[in-house]
Amino acid sequence: MSSDRPHTPLLDTIRRPADMKSLSDRQLTQLARELRAETISAVSVTGGHLGAGLGVVELTVALHAVFDTPRDKLIWDVGHQCYPHKILTERRDRIRTLRMKDGLSGFTKRKESPYDPFGAAHSSTSISAALGFAVARDLGGVVPEGLGDAIAVIGDGAMSAGMAYEAMNNAGHLGKRLIVILNDNEMSIAPPTGAMSSYLSRLYAEEPFQDLKAAAKGAVSLLPEPFREGAKRAKDMLKGMAVGGTLFEELGFSYLGPIDGHDMDQLLPVLRTVKARATGPILIHVLTKKGKGYAPAETARDKGHATAKFDVVTGEQKKAPSNAPSYTRVFADSLLQEAAEDDKICAVTAAMPDGTGLNLFAERYPSRCFDVGIAEQHGVTFCAGLAAGGMKPFCAIYSTFLQRGYDQVVHDVAIQRLPVRFAIDRAGLVGADGATHAGAFDIAYLANLPGFVVMAAADEAELKHMVATAAAYEDGPIAFRFPRGEGQGVEMPDRGEVLEIGKGRVIAQGARVALLSFGTRLAEVEKAGEALRARGLAPTIADARFAKPLDRDLILQLAAEHEALITIEEGAVGGFGSHVAQLLAEEGIFDRGLKYRSMVLPDIFIDQASPADMYAVAGMNAAQIEGRVLDVLDIAQIGEARA
Amino acid sequence: MSSDRPHTPLLDTIRRPADMKSLSDRQLTQLARELRAETISAVSVTGGHLGAGLGVVELTVALHAVFDTPRDKLIWDVGHQCYPHKILTERRDRIRTLRMKDGLSGFTKRKESPYDPFGAAHSSTSISAALGFAVARDLGGVVPEGLGDAIAVIGDGAMSAGMAYEAMNNAGHLGKRLIVILNDNEMSIAPPTGAMSSYLSRLYAEEPFQDLKAAAKGAVSLLPEPFREGAKRAKDMLKGMAVGGTLFEELGFSYLGPIDGHDMDQLLPVLRTVKARATGPILIHVLTKKGKGYAPAETARDKGHATAKFDVVTGEQKKAPSNAPSYTRVFADSLLQEAAEDDKICAVTAAMPDGTGLNLFAERYPSRCFDVGIAEQHGVTFCAGLAAGGMKPFCAIYSTFLQRGYDQVVHDVAIQRLPVRFAIDRAGLVGADGATHAGAFDIAYLANLPGFVVMAAADEAELKHMVATAAAYEDGPIAFRFPRGEGQGVEMPDRGEVLEIGKGRVIAQGARVALLSFGTRLAEVEKAGEALRARGLAPTIADARFAKPLDRDLILQLAAEHEALITIEEGAVGGFGSHVAQLLAEEGIFDRGLKYRSMVLPDIFIDQASPADMYAVAGMNAAQIEGRVLDVLDIAQIGEARA
Repeated sequence: MSSDRPHTPLLDTIRRPADMKSLSDRQLTQLARELRAETISAVSVTGGHLGAGLGVVELTVALHAVFDTPRDKLIWDVGHQCYPHKILTERRDRIRTLRMKDGLSGFTKRKESPYDPFGAAHSSTSISAALGFAVARDLGGVVPEGLGDAIAVIGDGAMSAGMAYEAMNNAGHLGKRLIVILNDNEMSIAPPTGAMSSYLSRLYAEEPFQDLKAAAKGAVSLLPEPFREGAKRAKDMLKGMAVGGTLFEELGFSYLGPIDGHDMDQLLPVLRTVKARATGPILIHVLTKKGKGYAPAETARDKGHATAKFDVVTGEQKKAPSNAPSYTRVFADSLLQEAAEDDKICAVTAAMPDGTGLNLFAERYPSRCFDVGIAEQHGVTFCAGLAAGGMKPFCAIYSTFLQRGYDQVVHDVAIQRLPVRFAIDRAGLVGADGATHAGAFDIAYLANLPGFVVMAAADEAELKHMVATAAAYEDGPIAFRFPRGEGQGVEMPDRGEVLEIGKGRVIAQGARVALLSFGTRLAEVEKAGEALRARGLAPTIADARFAKPLDRDLILQLAAEHEALITIEEGAVGGFGSHVAQLLAEEGIFDRGLKYRSMVLPDIFIDQASPADMYAVAGMNAAQIEGRVLDVLDIAQIGEARA
Repeated sequence: MSSDRPHTPLLDTIRRPADMKSLSDRQLTQLARELRAETISAVSVTGGHLGAGLGVVELTVALHAVFDTPRDKLIWDVGHQCYPHKILTERRDRIRTLRMKDGLSGFTKRKESPYDPFGAAHSSTSISAALGFAVARDLGGVVPEGLGDAIAVIGDGAMSAGMAYEAMNNAGHLGKRLIVILNDNEMSIAPPTGAMSSYLSRLYAEEPFQDLKAAAKGAVSLLPEPFREGAKRAKDMLKGMAVGGTLFEELGFSYLGPIDGHDMDQLLPVLRTVKARATGPILIHVLTKKGKGYAPAETARDKGHATAKFDVVTGEQKKAPSNAPSYTRVFADSLLQEAAEDDKICAVTAAMPDGTGLNLFAERYPSRCFDVGIAEQHGVTFCAGLAAGGMKPFCAIYSTFLQRGYDQVVHDVAIQRLPVRFAIDRAGLVGADGATHAGAFDIAYLANLPGFVVMAAADEAELKHMVATAAAYEDGPIAFRFPRGEGQGVEMPDRGEVLEIGKGRVIAQGARVALLSFGTRLAEVEKAGEALRARGLAPTIADARFAKPLDRDLILQLAAEHEALITIEEGAVGGFGSHVAQLLAEEGIFDRGLKYRSMVLPDIFIDQASPADMYAVAGMNAAQIEGRVLDVLDIAQIGEARA
């Protein structure tokens, strides 16, 4: 691949931001050009988030040129846009390992570099974190790199999250020096939604406003010198300052902008002036284009948000051929099928229409599909309101993001026993996105809520049944979880079948050991079963389907008829296996002895790798399940000397 | 008590809102006077939330007079202010059972009345829920009472929560007819904090603004007729509409106000006009006084927020004498002691300075204490930023409210292994606040996070040790939980002792059965132990102190040396007992048989009662623990015929 690498003579001299301090503004512009080429080249090899990084190439260069990282804390919200930042901060030599096992994370990460003062991956945390650093600085906090300015770079989409508002509300009140850069590209992962988005558009769409009083209030004193002279630039800036900013200023921020985020002649003087003169919290409104400077990204519908490896010249992505539909697609298609026959079914996504597959629903039933923005808290309670109003809402949120709406799940849905259907995608380990996106905790945090039904699909046909089951179930909240990626390639039924609540199924009847799976590890369990049968040990294999309510009869029967019972689930301790253990304990099964084991995700955050590699780390692939059975039954394994 | 009841001739004729439809405006004003007197009288008998209800007496009457509840959905945010509403909606006959066992809930509750279309207790959910009803209405949702207008009544304090912003952002975008009443009393539970609060004050503090263009934009067309004539009133309203509202209007709402929320001559015409003419989302800004009309409440520092039973004439509260300091107070004092010697210690509360005891910290160390508003998401990540900046933040949030910041606990604290100290008050069952405030899930949702340390205090001395332990621990996140109410009255050490991480303690050495307690059930366990000893069966009793990391040696020893092992915790399944079971399973202890039981909160939401009564429902008082031991050991109990 190295023959494809771009010519980057200036970038080649930069190992860390300190090396940029001697560069002229003109050289910084050139550096940005080279950084863009290097970013494109790297992502063409690794795949990953391309568009976001390309949109902030100039901003990245300007920030590192003006501020003193890592003493100044530069916090990239979400972190999708951090690849150019990583190239400039001692990580260029590893940039072609992005998102790979043992490679660089696709997000910022404290463990990885002192230039990443606060890791990210979920949206809208940067202002809170930056405010923490700013307050720590003023209180005399001590860290190895020192504490200087705190700078949050946050996208317009991320501004739809309540958390960002909470942080601005608090920052405006405290009045500490704090720099927030609003990276406004009118495009987060999906086109942004909500009133805030319309508001931001108006900030630069309105006619110039003649009354400069508002501008005088806070922002004009921060005007960089060159802008005071350049009439056009000054007018452009004043326009923004005068008509806009109100909302941010009402929250206690000085507002500056909007400025062109691809023009170093605007970025550099503005940042220098802010660095020299800012006192309290200030918001700099920067306009950028996602995918900027790479035609295939600029013209893509998602602006090159996330891409597979690709050919730099043509932009063509090199995706592996798929053998089975993705779980996401099966969910989306199944829901469409149900919705065609039930006009009470509606769907809610929190800024992930494509990721959840609800883009298909939105096309077919636009009036019944709601993208609430990055707003899981509201999204969940909005669904509760819809359910209370007689609708059948499907709340489609990834496992890891549903954590954002947990209190609403408890307080608004579970306590009121409202029939909200939770479609929990990305359950279990997710691969290249790593630990921050793992769906590890949802079984535990949902299955102990009174009245909840919690299902996990073992394959894509099961998922279809579970969508139908959720659509038919009206007695309270119900959740079904399914993983990222492709299905098993099983034959699909024409229609989803409504499952009996709280009933599992026996896949294979065997002896001595029963393997009770909850979720898609079933495929690995079956492989382990084959290997065990080859040894003359045919295990019983069952699919629990439900973590709540448990299939008591099935579990007690498995316990009664086998020497050992092993549960397996793609989740942390506290979930399915814990509920099974609680049942077995209550029933006195342990009193007389049972070789019970619960295979759960281990007590570590697992770094990015392929899902298969991550499950190997977790000890959950077929060979490891087989080994576990042999171990429990005290059968010596070849090549190992076990007692 | 009935001799003390106020004279309420008009109120006596009103059983439900339909009975108010024939009343004149003058009669409605009289009804409000009587309703206020009845509210004061009722709360004097029951204790409860007084100030909030008194602030909305006129608003309650006006809303029920103008709108058609229960067809129109009236949603009270938080619900502290709902007592007058309950009196008017078929529940006056039970109003003196408020917050008691088998009585009326202190909050709105769907199970209780069709006039409570959406239950509350946690803050800032009302706009999301109301939007759900509004959308359901427009999509043809069907509910028994029908679907009319959706009206959210939300306080200014509740507006500091991101969830409210998320909901407004979405509502402004959707443009559905939706009525939000901002009940601005400049006082939620504590004086409000944050930039939004300052903004709201400015809305009515600024000088009249001459340019009426802004007013013309949206609100003026909604002006009620009488106001167009009354010059002064019109001026008052226009003032608000013109200078203010911007922020709400930018989010897509029409803004109307501010109006005097105690003046029926303003409330009634405004609400009638809104009902007649509103099309999209509208926000009505109503100014009220918390505690209005009852001098002891109006003059109290907390405006009569929550009160014990009291004498109506004097306002004097009848509190039971306390024998021991509250856990909250012990936490606060212990933290002060630590902070006196370590200037890196700082403290964060989410709008609960009094409830968490941090008001004392704020007085002593104002620069190190932060009230972030009702903003748990931000509060947790702000703490993560403080920790990353070298400070030692204590994040003091009730168990039930920490659910609001769960993703931030996972993503910003746990994954980055930042040493944030979580002081989790109100763990376990909490009494009169009922199921919505129970701290039932935190053990489960924290103890499965890699790298977390999770402690529970068995008594107030233990709490002091745990504060010291958390202050000293720098290796990652650490949490300690403690209940509402008074301590056990144990002797207090002068200084908290730093506990060894992951080590429990044996309280009493016995035989046959080991009782392993995590938290304050230890007192009941010891009582059960006494009763058992009287039967000649001396149990071993141990205090685990840590749910994570577990004291493996202690647990395995208890298992090895006893016929039965019973864990007890004030939490739902998935927590401490589940982690113990996982350990025992992994170690093969169940293989050879162990009478293992895990006593956890039952799989129901328990309605309000005294904590003792609630724990009896949960099966966790001393007699029940004793019974459990006898049952497990198969010892016949007197009066019962057990095999």
